[in-house]
Amino acid sequence: MACCVDFHFDFSSPYGFLAAMKIEGALKGGRYRRLSWRPFLLGAVYQRFGQSPLEHPLKRRYVLEIDAPRVGRRDGLALKVPSGFPQHSLPAARAFYWIEARAPEKAPEFAKAAYRKYWLEGQSTADPAVAIEAATMLGFDRKRVNEGLQESAVKLRLITENEQAIANGVFGSPFIRVDGEPFWGSDCLEDVAEWLAA
Amino acid sequence: MACCVDFHFDFSSPYGFLAAMKIEGALKGGRYRRLSWRPFLLGAVYQRFGQSPLEHPLKRRYVLEIDAPRVGRRDGLALKVPSGFPQHSLPAARAFYWIEARAPEKAPEFAKAAYRKYWLEGQSTADPAVAIEAATMLGFDRKRVNEGLQESAVKLRLITENEQAIANGVFGSPFIRVDGEPFWGSDCLEDVAEWLAA
Repeated sequence: MACCVDFHFDFSSPYGFLAAMKIEGALKGGRYRRLSWRPFLLGAVYQRFGQSPLEHPLKRRYVLEIDAPRVGRRDGLALKVPSGFPQHSLPAARAFYWIEARAPEKAPEFAKAAYRKYWLEGQSTADPAVAIEAATMLGFDRKRVNEGLQESAVKLRLITENEQAIANGVFGSPFIRVDGEPFWGSDCLEDVAEWLAA
Repeated sequence: MACCVDFHFDFSSPYGFLAAMKIEGALKGGRYRRLSWRPFLLGAVYQRFGQSPLEHPLKRRYVLEIDAPRVGRRDGLALKVPSGFPQHSLPAARAFYWIEARAPEKAPEFAKAAYRKYWLEGQSTADPAVAIEAATMLGFDRKRVNEGLQESAVKLRLITENEQAIANGVFGSPFIRVDGEPFWGSDCLEDVAEWLAA
């Protein structure tokens, strides 16, 4: 029986979105105790190593125009690239940890609601209003979420999360660790399920 | 019925190796006319965009120490990283096209023989003697292969291949194109098979 499945993802990552939409179903019945949703900022991880994600133009075109939409179609999802992409996803990441501290059971629901706004509706990942709207859809107070985004504890939580991601060898999104065993990419969900079954 | 499956790979790529060992089996029964083995130099493609493959230390560690060996174990292959890795794979790429011009049916066999030397025996991809040895195992004359590596036609063939790879949007290894539809990564073989069946 595995203890923890850590699901690291960036809200601005198309493969993070694709994984978020199906990870619970894919791991259903797997032998593990806990699935932790852990948004982080891929930009912060790349910056540490002097790089930026999807900077290779051919790779970027392949991911955004070919592969992610193709996987989406297979999963019944019509992908729309967020306006202004690529941008950071600070608001949703902070809102996630603000919600998690108050109603942990609602945090994954928030993550999926925000992801849908970015990757199905094409809204900007950098616009705080979008993350706040996703939170209000789950019953949170607009004004309180807005203030929450500026709370020191929330800011520190996300900074710590980014640091832990780097310390854990996380370099992409999604990145899944099963008691430390790392798996990279949305197409690794079957491998994770297999690993949990073994 | 698809016409061509283009299998682009770099001899210094672990996922290229893993794909080469199983691509024929994975596509068996698929509706296509021709599988083209097309080695290229990933370094040349990256150089064009001012980058280098696996330059991210966390990603490099994940690929070489975790994921490629894990996929290898699943496929029954005990991976050994080539001595001096990462190095270019000019000798095998040139030897491949020299052989292809003379005995096209032997070229894929040469590719697999050379790949085994690099990724199962851990021999250097940059050492011409290793590529030449793989060719002699298939019955080619050592001295003639050695001279072949310096032939202008062979050099030009590889340069053209690299240019075509870039023009076709190839940015990684392995990279498979089915009548132009691109698939990246050794884990895409099932997707390619599915595509061919559709």
